[in-house]
Amino acid sequence: MLATPSLTELRQHVAQARAKGLKVGLVPTMGALHAGHRSLVETCRSECGFVVATIFVNPTQFGPNEDFTRYPRTLEADLEMCRAAGADLVFHPETASVYPEGFSTYVDVEGITARLEGESRPGHFRGVATVVLKLFNMAQADVAYFGQKDYQQQLLIRTMCRDLDVPIEIRTCPTIREPDGLALSSRNRYLSPAERAKALSLSKALRMAERLLQAGEKNVSAVRAAMMAVLEEPTGVRVDYASVSDPHTLAELTTPQPEMVALVAARVGTTRLIDNLWISIP
Amino acid sequence: MLATPSLTELRQHVAQARAKGLKVGLVPTMGALHAGHRSLVETCRSECGFVVATIFVNPTQFGPNEDFTRYPRTLEADLEMCRAAGADLVFHPETASVYPEGFSTYVDVEGITARLEGESRPGHFRGVATVVLKLFNMAQADVAYFGQKDYQQQLLIRTMCRDLDVPIEIRTCPTIREPDGLALSSRNRYLSPAERAKALSLSKALRMAERLLQAGEKNVSAVRAAMMAVLEEPTGVRVDYASVSDPHTLAELTTPQPEMVALVAARVGTTRLIDNLWISIP
Repeated sequence: MLATPSLTELRQHVAQARAKGLKVGLVPTMGALHAGHRSLVETCRSECGFVVATIFVNPTQFGPNEDFTRYPRTLEADLEMCRAAGADLVFHPETASVYPEGFSTYVDVEGITARLEGESRPGHFRGVATVVLKLFNMAQADVAYFGQKDYQQQLLIRTMCRDLDVPIEIRTCPTIREPDGLALSSRNRYLSPAERAKALSLSKALRMAERLLQAGEKNVSAVRAAMMAVLEEPTGVRVDYASVSDPHTLAELTTPQPEMVALVAARVGTTRLIDNLWISIP
Repeated sequence: MLATPSLTELRQHVAQARAKGLKVGLVPTMGALHAGHRSLVETCRSECGFVVATIFVNPTQFGPNEDFTRYPRTLEADLEMCRAAGADLVFHPETASVYPEGFSTYVDVEGITARLEGESRPGHFRGVATVVLKLFNMAQADVAYFGQKDYQQQLLIRTMCRDLDVPIEIRTCPTIREPDGLALSSRNRYLSPAERAKALSLSKALRMAERLLQAGEKNVSAVRAAMMAVLEEPTGVRVDYASVSDPHTLAELTTPQPEMVALVAARVGTTRLIDNLWISIP
Protein backbone atom coordinates (compact mmCIF):
# COMPACT_ATOMS: atom_id res chain seq x y z
CA MET A 1 0.00 0.00 0.00
CA LEU A 2 1.24 3.46 -0.97
CA ALA A 3 0.65 6.45 1.32
CA THR A 4 1.31 9.87 -0.15
CA PRO A 5 0.46 13.55 0.29
CA SER A 6 1.09 14.14 -3.44
CA LEU A 7 -1.80 14.82 -5.83
CA THR A 8 0.49 14.02 -8.76
CA GLU A 9 1.25 10.56 -7.35
CA LEU A 10 -2.42 9.96 -6.60
CA ARG A 11 -3.39 10.79 -10.17
CA GLN A 12 -0.56 8.72 -11.66
CA HIS A 13 -1.59 5.62 -9.74
CA VAL A 14 -5.28 6.07 -10.51
CA ALA A 15 -4.48 6.53 -14.21
CA GLN A 16 -2.34 3.37 -14.18
CA ALA A 17 -5.14 1.42 -12.51
CA ARG A 18 -7.67 2.66 -15.03
CA ALA A 19 -5.33 1.83 -17.91
CA LYS A 20 -5.36 -1.74 -16.58
CA GLY A 21 -9.17 -1.70 -16.75
CA LEU A 22 -9.62 -1.59 -12.99
CA LYS A 23 -12.65 0.06 -11.36
CA VAL A 24 -11.43 2.79 -9.01
CA GLY A 25 -13.12 3.20 -5.61
CA LEU A 26 -12.72 6.10 -3.18
CA VAL A 27 -13.27 6.25 0.59
CA PRO A 28 -12.94 9.87 1.79
CA THR A 29 -12.29 10.18 5.54
CA MET A 30 -11.04 12.67 8.11
CA GLY A 31 -8.86 9.98 9.71
CA ALA A 32 -9.23 8.86 13.34
CA LEU A 33 -10.48 5.70 11.72
CA HIS A 34 -12.73 3.18 13.44
CA ALA A 35 -14.55 0.01 12.42
CA GLY A 36 -17.12 2.08 10.49
CA HIS A 37 -14.39 3.39 8.20
CA ARG A 38 -12.88 -0.09 8.01
CA SER A 39 -16.16 -1.47 6.73
CA LEU A 40 -16.22 1.24 4.04
CA VAL A 41 -12.73 0.30 2.86
CA GLU A 42 -13.61 -3.40 2.97
CA THR A 43 -16.77 -2.84 0.94
CA CYS A 44 -14.80 -0.76 -1.55
CA ARG A 45 -12.20 -3.57 -1.75
CA SER A 46 -14.90 -6.13 -2.48
CA GLU A 47 -16.34 -4.04 -5.32
CA CYS A 48 -13.37 -2.27 -6.91
CA GLY A 49 -10.07 -3.22 -8.49
CA PHE A 50 -8.21 -0.21 -7.07
CA VAL A 51 -9.00 1.17 -3.62
CA VAL A 52 -8.12 4.74 -2.62
CA ALA A 53 -8.73 6.09 0.88
CA THR A 54 -8.19 9.75 1.70
CA ILE A 55 -7.37 11.22 5.09
CA PHE A 56 -7.89 14.95 5.43
CA VAL A 57 -9.22 16.91 8.39
CA ASN A 58 -11.04 19.57 6.39
CA PRO A 59 -10.90 22.96 8.14
CA THR A 60 -13.70 24.54 6.07
CA GLN A 61 -16.37 22.23 7.46
CA PHE A 62 -15.67 23.19 11.08
CA GLY A 63 -17.27 26.28 12.61
CA PRO A 64 -15.13 28.80 14.54
CA ASN A 65 -16.22 27.31 17.90
CA GLU A 66 -16.00 23.69 16.85
CA ASP A 67 -13.36 21.02 17.45
CA PHE A 68 -11.06 21.43 14.40
CA THR A 69 -7.85 21.87 16.40
CA ARG A 70 -8.56 19.09 18.86
CA TYR A 71 -10.04 16.69 16.27
CA PRO A 72 -8.12 13.41 16.73
CA ARG A 73 -5.19 12.87 14.33
CA THR A 74 -3.88 9.31 14.32
CA LEU A 75 -2.13 8.92 10.96
CA GLU A 76 0.04 5.88 11.74
CA ALA A 77 -2.84 3.85 13.15
CA ASP A 78 -5.06 5.00 10.27
CA LEU A 79 -2.56 3.81 7.67
CA GLU A 80 -2.31 0.44 9.39
CA MET A 81 -6.11 0.07 9.38
CA CYS A 82 -6.31 1.02 5.69
CA ARG A 83 -3.61 -1.52 4.86
CA ALA A 84 -5.38 -4.25 6.81
CA ALA A 85 -8.72 -3.41 5.17
CA GLY A 86 -7.20 -3.73 1.70
CA ALA A 87 -6.55 -0.17 0.48
CA ASP A 88 -4.10 0.22 -2.41
CA LEU A 89 -3.35 3.88 -1.81
CA VAL A 90 -3.92 6.39 0.99
CA PHE A 91 -3.87 10.04 -0.01
CA HIS A 92 -3.25 12.39 2.94
CA PRO A 93 -2.71 15.90 1.49
CA GLU A 94 -1.42 18.93 3.36
CA THR A 95 -3.95 21.66 4.14
CA ALA A 96 -1.92 24.25 2.22
CA SER A 97 -2.07 22.15 -0.95
CA VAL A 98 -5.82 21.58 -0.67
CA TYR A 99 -6.53 25.26 0.07
CA PRO A 100 -3.77 27.26 -1.63
CA GLU A 101 -3.31 31.01 -1.19
CA GLY A 102 -6.21 32.81 -2.87
CA PHE A 103 -8.60 29.88 -2.67
CA SER A 104 -12.08 31.34 -3.26
CA THR A 105 -14.49 28.77 -4.77
CA TYR A 106 -17.29 27.12 -2.82
CA VAL A 107 -20.12 24.72 -3.57
CA ASP A 108 -23.53 25.21 -1.97
CA VAL A 109 -26.32 22.66 -1.97
CA GLU A 110 -29.51 24.46 -1.01
CA GLY A 111 -32.78 22.95 0.23
CA ILE A 112 -31.78 19.73 1.98
CA THR A 113 -29.06 21.55 3.94
CA ALA A 114 -31.38 24.15 5.46
CA ARG A 115 -32.38 22.09 8.52
CA LEU A 116 -30.82 19.71 11.07
CA GLU A 117 -27.00 19.75 10.77
CA GLY A 118 -27.18 22.71 8.38
CA GLU A 119 -29.10 24.73 10.94
CA SER A 120 -26.96 23.62 13.90
CA ARG A 121 -23.64 24.07 12.07
CA PRO A 122 -23.73 27.13 9.76
CA GLY A 123 -21.21 26.76 6.92
CA HIS A 124 -20.59 23.08 7.68
CA PHE A 125 -22.17 21.71 4.51
CA ARG A 126 -20.55 24.33 2.27
CA GLY A 127 -17.22 23.01 3.55
CA VAL A 128 -18.29 19.39 3.08
CA ALA A 129 -19.60 19.88 -0.48
CA THR A 130 -16.52 21.84 -1.51
CA VAL A 131 -13.95 19.39 -0.16
CA VAL A 132 -15.80 16.30 -1.37
CA LEU A 133 -16.06 17.71 -4.90
CA LYS A 134 -12.34 18.53 -4.73
CA LEU A 135 -11.48 14.98 -3.62
CA PHE A 136 -13.67 13.55 -6.40
CA ASN A 137 -11.85 15.72 -8.95
CA MET A 138 -8.45 14.82 -7.48
CA ALA A 139 -9.02 11.06 -7.47
CA GLN A 140 -11.37 10.74 -10.46
CA ALA A 141 -12.75 7.52 -9.03
CA ASP A 142 -15.66 5.55 -10.47
CA VAL A 143 -17.43 5.06 -7.15
CA ALA A 144 -17.21 6.61 -3.67
CA TYR A 145 -18.29 5.20 -0.31
CA PHE A 146 -19.90 7.06 2.59
CA GLY A 147 -21.48 5.97 5.87
CA GLN A 148 -25.16 6.28 6.60
CA LYS A 149 -24.15 7.64 10.01
CA ASP A 150 -23.84 11.06 8.33
CA TYR A 151 -27.24 10.77 6.71
CA GLN A 152 -27.69 14.39 5.64
CA GLN A 153 -24.11 14.45 4.32
CA GLN A 154 -24.58 11.48 1.99
CA LEU A 155 -27.84 13.01 0.75
CA LEU A 156 -26.03 16.29 0.09
CA ILE A 157 -23.29 14.47 -1.83
CA ARG A 158 -25.82 12.57 -3.93
CA THR A 159 -27.68 15.80 -4.71
CA MET A 160 -24.45 17.63 -5.58
CA CYS A 161 -23.34 14.85 -7.93
CA ARG A 162 -26.72 14.72 -9.66
CA ASP A 163 -26.94 18.52 -10.01
CA LEU A 164 -23.36 19.04 -11.19
CA ASP A 165 -23.24 15.88 -13.36
CA VAL A 166 -20.24 14.57 -11.45
CA PRO A 167 -19.35 11.26 -13.15
CA ILE A 168 -19.18 9.14 -10.00
CA GLU A 169 -21.44 6.62 -8.30
CA ILE A 170 -22.23 7.18 -4.60
CA ARG A 171 -22.65 4.19 -2.30
CA THR A 172 -24.04 4.62 1.22
CA CYS A 173 -23.03 1.89 3.67
CA PRO A 174 -24.74 0.91 6.94
CA THR A 175 -23.88 2.60 10.23
CA ILE A 176 -21.62 0.39 12.34
CA ARG A 177 -22.58 0.20 16.02
CA GLU A 178 -21.12 -1.06 19.26
CA PRO A 179 -22.94 -4.11 20.66
CA ASP A 180 -24.93 -1.82 22.98
CA GLY A 181 -26.14 0.34 20.05
CA LEU A 182 -23.74 3.32 20.16
CA ALA A 183 -22.97 4.44 16.59
CA LEU A 184 -19.23 4.47 15.92
CA SER A 185 -17.80 7.98 15.60
CA SER A 186 -14.33 9.46 15.72
CA ARG A 187 -15.72 11.79 18.38
CA ASN A 188 -16.63 8.92 20.72
CA ARG A 189 -13.03 8.99 21.93
CA TYR A 190 -13.75 12.38 23.55
CA LEU A 191 -16.25 10.68 25.90
CA SER A 192 -15.48 9.81 29.53
CA PRO A 193 -16.86 6.43 30.70
CA ALA A 194 -19.82 8.22 32.32
CA GLU A 195 -20.49 10.21 29.15
CA ARG A 196 -20.17 7.06 27.06
CA ALA A 197 -23.07 5.59 29.03
CA LYS A 198 -25.18 8.71 28.57
CA ALA A 199 -24.44 8.74 24.81
CA LEU A 200 -26.54 5.59 24.48
CA SER A 201 -29.61 7.82 24.75
CA LEU A 202 -29.18 8.75 21.05
CA SER A 203 -29.58 5.23 19.68
CA LYS A 204 -32.23 4.45 22.31
CA ALA A 205 -34.29 7.44 21.15
CA LEU A 206 -34.10 6.21 17.54
CA ARG A 207 -35.23 2.71 18.55
CA MET A 208 -38.07 4.26 20.54
CA ALA A 209 -39.22 6.13 17.41
CA GLU A 210 -39.03 2.95 15.39
CA ARG A 211 -40.99 0.97 17.96
CA LEU A 212 -43.75 3.57 18.21
CA LEU A 213 -44.10 4.06 14.45
CA GLN A 214 -44.05 0.36 13.68
CA ALA A 215 -46.68 -0.16 16.40
CA GLY A 216 -48.97 2.18 14.46
CA GLU A 217 -48.50 5.52 16.23
CA LYS A 218 -50.05 8.12 13.88
CA ASN A 219 -49.03 11.24 15.81
CA VAL A 220 -45.47 12.10 14.75
CA SER A 221 -45.32 14.94 17.28
CA ALA A 222 -45.87 12.37 20.02
CA VAL A 223 -43.05 10.28 18.55
CA ARG A 224 -40.71 13.29 18.64
CA ALA A 225 -41.75 14.03 22.24
CA ALA A 226 -40.96 10.44 23.19
CA MET A 227 -37.55 10.71 21.49
CA MET A 228 -36.84 13.93 23.40
CA ALA A 229 -37.79 12.27 26.70
CA VAL A 230 -35.37 9.40 26.06
CA LEU A 231 -32.60 11.75 24.89
CA GLU A 232 -32.90 14.04 27.88
CA GLU A 233 -33.24 11.29 30.47
CA PRO A 234 -29.53 11.31 31.44
CA THR A 235 -28.29 14.52 33.04
CA GLY A 236 -25.80 16.49 30.96
CA VAL A 237 -27.30 15.68 27.55
CA ARG A 238 -28.46 18.73 25.57
CA VAL A 239 -30.50 17.99 22.48
CA ASP A 240 -29.92 19.87 19.21
CA TYR A 241 -32.76 18.14 17.37
CA ALA A 242 -34.92 15.04 17.31
CA SER A 243 -36.55 14.64 13.93
CA VAL A 244 -38.74 12.28 11.93
CA SER A 245 -38.21 13.28 8.31
CA ASP A 246 -38.78 12.31 4.72
CA PRO A 247 -35.66 10.34 3.73
CA HIS A 248 -35.29 12.13 0.36
CA THR A 249 -36.22 15.76 1.10
CA LEU A 250 -35.50 15.79 4.86
CA ALA A 251 -38.80 17.64 5.33
CA GLU A 252 -40.15 17.15 8.85
CA LEU A 253 -43.14 14.78 8.80
CA THR A 254 -46.52 15.42 10.38
CA THR A 255 -47.97 11.99 9.56
CA PRO A 256 -46.15 8.67 9.18
CA GLN A 257 -45.30 7.35 5.71
CA PRO A 258 -43.93 3.97 4.55
CA GLU A 259 -40.29 5.12 4.54
CA MET A 260 -38.93 7.63 7.07
CA VAL A 261 -35.68 8.58 8.69
CA ALA A 262 -35.34 9.52 12.35
CA LEU A 263 -32.41 11.78 13.16
CA VAL A 264 -30.96 13.05 16.41
CA ALA A 265 -28.14 15.35 17.47
CA ALA A 266 -27.12 16.05 21.04
CA ARG A 267 -24.26 17.26 23.15
CA VAL A 268 -22.99 14.86 25.79
CA GLY A 269 -20.78 17.02 27.97
CA THR A 270 -18.83 19.03 25.40
CA THR A 271 -19.04 16.34 22.70
CA ARG A 272 -21.59 16.72 19.94
CA LEU A 273 -22.91 13.42 18.59
CA ILE A 274 -25.36 12.53 15.80
CA ASP A 275 -27.20 9.38 14.84
CA ASN A 276 -30.07 8.30 12.59
CA LEU A 277 -32.22 5.34 11.73
CA TRP A 278 -34.15 4.47 8.56
CA ILE A 279 -37.64 3.37 9.58
CA SER A 280 -39.91 1.34 7.31
CA ILE A 281 -43.53 0.60 8.12
CA PRO A 282 -44.42 -2.78 6.65
CA MET B 1 -20.67 15.83 -37.42
CA LEU B 2 -23.16 14.57 -34.84
CA ALA B 3 -25.60 16.98 -33.16
CA THR B 4 -27.45 15.68 -30.15
CA PRO B 5 -29.33 16.84 -27.03
CA SER B 6 -28.44 13.55 -25.29
CA LEU B 7 -25.89 13.46 -22.46
CA THR B 8 -25.62 9.70 -22.88
CA GLU B 9 -24.63 10.08 -26.55
CA LEU B 10 -22.17 12.86 -25.70
CA ARG B 11 -20.46 10.67 -23.10
CA GLN B 12 -20.41 7.63 -25.39
CA HIS B 13 -18.70 9.52 -28.18
CA VAL B 14 -16.19 11.17 -25.85
CA ALA B 15 -15.37 7.80 -24.29
CA GLN B 16 -14.88 6.28 -27.75
CA ALA B 17 -12.59 9.14 -28.77
CA ARG B 18 -10.57 8.79 -25.57
CA ALA B 19 -10.33 5.02 -26.07
CA LYS B 20 -8.71 5.80 -29.45
CA GLY B 21 -6.16 7.97 -27.64
CA LEU B 22 -7.59 11.25 -28.95
CA LYS B 23 -7.32 14.48 -26.98
CA VAL B 24 -10.83 15.84 -26.34
CA GLY B 25 -11.48 19.57 -26.72
CA LEU B 26 -14.58 21.48 -25.61
CA VAL B 27 -15.98 24.81 -26.82
CA PRO B 28 -18.93 25.86 -24.61
CA THR B 29 -21.22 28.46 -26.23
CA MET B 30 -24.69 29.94 -25.90
CA GLY B 31 -25.19 29.67 -29.67
CA ALA B 32 -25.88 32.67 -31.93
CA LEU B 33 -22.41 31.89 -33.17
CA HIS B 34 -20.16 34.41 -34.87
CA ALA B 35 -16.58 34.45 -36.13
CA GLY B 36 -15.30 34.65 -32.55
CA HIS B 37 -16.87 31.30 -31.77
CA ARG B 38 -15.69 29.97 -35.12
CA SER B 39 -12.10 30.80 -34.20
CA LEU B 40 -12.51 28.93 -30.89
CA VAL B 41 -13.73 25.80 -32.71
CA GLU B 42 -10.95 26.12 -35.30
CA THR B 43 -8.29 26.50 -32.58
CA CYS B 44 -9.75 23.48 -30.78
CA ARG B 45 -9.70 21.54 -34.06
CA SER B 46 -6.03 22.37 -34.58
CA GLU B 47 -5.07 21.18 -31.09
CA CYS B 48 -7.41 18.25 -30.36
CA GLY B 49 -8.32 14.94 -31.92
CA PHE B 50 -11.99 15.16 -30.97
CA VAL B 51 -13.83 18.50 -30.98
CA VAL B 52 -17.02 19.03 -28.97
CA ALA B 53 -19.00 22.28 -29.10
CA THR B 54 -21.94 22.89 -26.80
CA ILE B 55 -24.88 25.21 -27.43
CA PHE B 56 -26.97 26.09 -24.39
CA VAL B 57 -28.57 29.40 -23.48
CA ASN B 58 -28.12 29.11 -19.73
CA PRO B 59 -31.04 30.68 -17.84
CA THR B 60 -29.25 30.87 -14.47
CA GLN B 61 -26.69 33.40 -15.71
CA PHE B 62 -29.34 35.93 -16.77
CA GLY B 63 -30.84 38.35 -14.26
CA PRO B 64 -34.62 38.78 -14.04
CA ASN B 65 -34.51 41.97 -16.13
CA GLU B 66 -31.98 40.72 -18.67
CA ASP B 67 -32.37 39.38 -22.20
CA PHE B 68 -32.77 35.63 -21.63
CA THR B 69 -36.05 35.30 -23.53
CA ARG B 70 -34.98 37.46 -26.47
CA TYR B 71 -31.40 36.10 -26.61
CA PRO B 72 -30.88 35.03 -30.25
CA ARG B 73 -31.41 31.32 -30.96
CA THR B 74 -30.12 30.24 -34.37
CA LEU B 75 -29.52 26.49 -34.02
CA GLU B 76 -29.46 25.55 -37.72
CA ALA B 77 -26.95 28.25 -38.65
CA ASP B 78 -24.91 27.41 -35.52
CA LEU B 79 -24.68 23.74 -36.47
CA GLU B 80 -23.58 24.68 -39.98
CA MET B 81 -20.83 26.95 -38.58
CA CYS B 82 -19.64 24.22 -36.19
CA ARG B 83 -19.53 21.73 -39.04
CA ALA B 84 -17.57 24.12 -41.26
CA ALA B 85 -15.12 24.91 -38.42
CA GLY B 86 -14.40 21.21 -37.87
CA ALA B 87 -16.45 20.14 -34.84
CA ASP B 88 -17.01 16.41 -34.42
CA LEU B 89 -20.01 16.71 -32.11
CA VAL B 90 -22.39 19.49 -31.05
CA PHE B 91 -24.20 18.95 -27.76
CA HIS B 92 -27.35 21.09 -27.39
CA PRO B 93 -29.18 19.91 -24.28
CA GLU B 94 -32.71 20.85 -23.24
CA THR B 95 -33.06 23.22 -20.28
CA ALA B 96 -35.11 20.66 -18.34
CA SER B 97 -32.34 18.07 -18.61
CA VAL B 98 -29.65 20.54 -17.48
CA TYR B 99 -31.75 21.82 -14.57
CA PRO B 100 -34.02 18.97 -13.50
CA GLU B 101 -36.81 19.33 -10.92
CA GLY B 102 -35.23 19.90 -7.51
CA PHE B 103 -31.94 21.28 -8.83
CA SER B 104 -30.30 23.04 -5.89
CA THR B 105 -26.48 23.10 -6.23
CA TYR B 106 -24.48 26.21 -7.11
CA VAL B 107 -20.83 27.14 -7.43
CA ASP B 108 -19.59 30.52 -6.20
CA VAL B 109 -16.21 32.01 -6.97
CA GLU B 110 -15.62 34.85 -4.54
CA GLY B 111 -13.10 37.66 -4.78
CA ILE B 112 -12.59 38.20 -8.51
CA THR B 113 -16.35 38.26 -9.11
CA ALA B 114 -17.08 41.06 -6.66
CA ARG B 115 -16.52 43.91 -9.12
CA LEU B 116 -17.22 44.81 -12.77
CA GLU B 117 -19.64 42.26 -14.31
CA GLY B 118 -20.26 40.71 -10.90
CA GLU B 119 -21.36 44.06 -9.52
CA SER B 120 -23.41 45.01 -12.59
CA ARG B 121 -25.06 41.60 -12.95
CA PRO B 122 -25.84 40.05 -9.52
CA GLY B 123 -26.02 36.25 -9.73
CA HIS B 124 -24.53 36.18 -13.24
CA PHE B 125 -21.25 34.53 -12.29
CA ARG B 126 -22.90 31.99 -9.99
CA GLY B 127 -24.87 30.88 -13.06
CA VAL B 128 -21.76 30.87 -15.24
CA ALA B 129 -19.61 28.89 -12.79
CA THR B 130 -22.38 26.36 -12.17
CA VAL B 131 -23.18 25.68 -15.82
CA VAL B 132 -19.54 25.59 -16.93
CA LEU B 133 -18.67 23.07 -14.23
CA LYS B 134 -21.68 21.01 -15.29
CA LEU B 135 -20.59 21.10 -18.94
CA PHE B 136 -17.05 20.11 -17.93
CA ASN B 137 -18.43 17.16 -15.96
CA MET B 138 -20.77 16.20 -18.79
CA ALA B 139 -18.13 16.25 -21.52
CA GLN B 140 -15.05 15.28 -19.47
CA ALA B 141 -12.82 17.00 -22.01
CA ASP B 142 -9.07 17.46 -21.66
CA VAL B 143 -9.08 21.12 -22.66
CA ALA B 144 -11.71 23.87 -22.99
CA TYR B 145 -11.63 27.06 -25.04
CA PHE B 146 -12.98 30.48 -24.07
CA GLY B 147 -12.75 33.94 -25.60
CA GLN B 148 -10.82 36.78 -24.01
CA LYS B 149 -13.83 38.97 -24.83
CA ASP B 150 -15.38 37.72 -21.57
CA TYR B 151 -12.23 38.47 -19.59
CA GLN B 152 -13.65 38.18 -16.08
CA GLN B 153 -15.48 34.98 -17.07
CA GLN B 154 -12.33 33.19 -18.24
CA LEU B 155 -10.56 34.31 -15.05
CA LEU B 156 -13.45 32.95 -12.99
CA ILE B 157 -13.30 29.63 -14.86
CA ARG B 158 -9.55 29.36 -14.35
CA THR B 159 -9.95 30.12 -10.64
CA MET B 160 -12.77 27.61 -10.27
CA CYS B 161 -10.79 24.85 -11.97
CA ARG B 162 -7.72 25.54 -9.83
CA ASP B 163 -9.73 25.70 -6.59
CA LEU B 164 -11.88 22.62 -7.29
CA ASP B 165 -9.06 20.59 -8.91
CA VAL B 166 -11.10 20.17 -12.09
CA PRO B 167 -8.93 18.02 -14.38
CA ILE B 168 -9.15 20.25 -17.45
CA GLU B 169 -6.86 22.75 -19.16
CA ILE B 170 -8.32 26.21 -19.90
CA ARG B 171 -7.26 28.05 -23.06
CA THR B 172 -8.16 31.69 -23.59
CA CYS B 173 -8.26 32.81 -27.22
CA PRO B 174 -7.99 36.36 -28.59
CA THR B 175 -11.03 38.58 -29.02
CA ILE B 176 -12.12 38.70 -32.66
CA ARG B 177 -13.00 42.19 -33.92
CA GLU B 178 -14.64 43.80 -36.94
CA PRO B 179 -12.18 45.74 -39.11
CA ASP B 180 -13.28 48.99 -37.38
CA GLY B 181 -12.53 47.55 -33.92
CA LEU B 182 -15.96 46.41 -32.67
CA ALA B 183 -15.56 43.21 -30.66
CA LEU B 184 -17.75 40.42 -32.01
CA SER B 185 -20.70 39.59 -29.74
CA SER B 186 -23.94 37.69 -30.18
CA ARG B 187 -25.62 40.82 -28.83
CA ASN B 188 -24.30 43.00 -31.68
CA ARG B 189 -27.26 41.80 -33.74
CA TYR B 190 -29.55 43.78 -31.41
CA LEU B 191 -27.91 47.03 -32.62
CA SER B 192 -29.49 49.37 -35.17
CA PRO B 193 -27.05 50.86 -37.71
CA ALA B 194 -26.91 54.08 -35.66
CA GLU B 195 -26.27 52.13 -32.44
CA ARG B 196 -23.65 50.01 -34.23
CA ALA B 197 -21.71 53.22 -34.92
CA LYS B 198 -22.01 54.38 -31.30
CA ALA B 199 -20.85 50.96 -30.05
CA LEU B 200 -17.41 51.73 -31.46
CA SER B 201 -16.85 53.97 -28.43
CA LEU B 202 -16.06 50.86 -26.35
CA SER B 203 -13.06 49.72 -28.36
CA LYS B 204 -12.01 53.35 -28.91
CA ALA B 205 -11.93 53.91 -25.13
CA LEU B 206 -9.73 50.84 -24.68
CA ARG B 207 -7.31 52.04 -27.37
CA MET B 208 -7.25 55.47 -25.69
CA ALA B 209 -6.25 53.82 -22.39
CA GLU B 210 -3.53 51.84 -24.15
CA ARG B 211 -2.19 54.93 -25.92
CA LEU B 212 -2.06 57.01 -22.74
CA LEU B 213 -0.47 54.28 -20.61
CA GLN B 214 2.08 53.33 -23.23
CA ALA B 215 2.93 57.04 -23.60
CA GLY B 216 3.88 57.08 -19.93
CA GLU B 217 0.76 58.45 -18.22
CA LYS B 218 1.23 57.76 -14.50
CA ASN B 219 -2.18 58.89 -13.30
CA VAL B 220 -4.58 55.98 -13.76
CA SER B 221 -7.52 58.12 -12.66
CA ALA B 222 -6.79 60.40 -15.60
CA VAL B 223 -6.75 57.38 -17.88
CA ARG B 224 -10.15 56.28 -16.61
CA ALA B 225 -11.50 59.81 -17.07
CA ALA B 226 -10.26 59.81 -20.64
CA MET B 227 -11.93 56.42 -21.25
CA MET B 228 -15.20 57.77 -19.82
CA ALA B 229 -15.02 60.80 -22.09
CA VAL B 230 -14.59 58.61 -25.17
CA LEU B 231 -17.32 56.20 -24.07
CA GLU B 232 -19.86 58.95 -23.37
CA GLU B 233 -19.11 60.98 -26.48
CA PRO B 234 -21.98 59.50 -28.52
CA THR B 235 -25.47 60.28 -27.20
CA GLY B 236 -27.40 57.29 -25.87
CA VAL B 237 -24.39 55.43 -24.43
CA ARG B 238 -24.61 54.80 -20.69
CA VAL B 239 -21.42 53.52 -19.05
CA ASP B 240 -21.52 50.73 -16.45
CA TYR B 241 -17.79 50.86 -15.79
CA ALA B 242 -14.44 51.87 -17.25
CA SER B 243 -11.64 50.12 -15.41
CA VAL B 244 -7.87 49.68 -15.45
CA SER B 245 -7.22 46.59 -13.38
CA ASP B 246 -4.67 44.01 -12.37
CA PRO B 247 -5.10 41.18 -14.91
CA HIS B 248 -4.94 38.43 -12.25
CA THR B 249 -6.87 39.87 -9.28
CA LEU B 250 -9.02 42.41 -11.15
CA ALA B 251 -8.18 44.92 -8.42
CA GLU B 252 -8.55 48.49 -9.69
CA LEU B 253 -5.12 50.07 -10.20
CA THR B 254 -3.97 53.42 -8.85
CA THR B 255 -0.58 53.36 -10.56
CA PRO B 256 0.42 51.71 -13.84
CA GLN B 257 2.20 48.34 -13.81
CA PRO B 258 3.87 46.32 -16.59
CA GLU B 259 0.76 44.21 -17.32
CA MET B 260 -2.76 45.59 -17.00
CA VAL B 261 -6.22 44.97 -18.40
CA ALA B 262 -8.62 47.75 -19.33
CA LEU B 263 -12.29 46.79 -19.20
CA VAL B 264 -15.46 48.60 -20.20
CA ALA B 265 -19.18 47.90 -20.10
CA ALA B 266 -21.86 50.19 -21.49
CA ARG B 267 -25.41 50.21 -22.71
CA VAL B 268 -25.96 51.36 -26.27
CA GLY B 269 -29.69 51.93 -26.46
CA THR B 270 -31.06 48.86 -24.66
CA THR B 271 -28.10 46.62 -25.57
CA ARG B 272 -25.43 46.00 -22.96
CA LEU B 273 -21.95 45.47 -24.42
CA ILE B 274 -18.57 44.68 -22.87
CA ASP B 275 -15.00 44.78 -24.14
CA ASN B 276 -11.46 44.65 -22.76
CA LEU B 277 -7.85 45.03 -23.76
CA TRP B 278 -4.66 43.62 -22.27
CA ILE B 279 -2.15 46.46 -21.99
CA SER B 280 1.61 45.88 -21.64
CA ILE B 281 4.07 48.66 -20.92
CA PRO B 282 7.38 47.76 -22.58
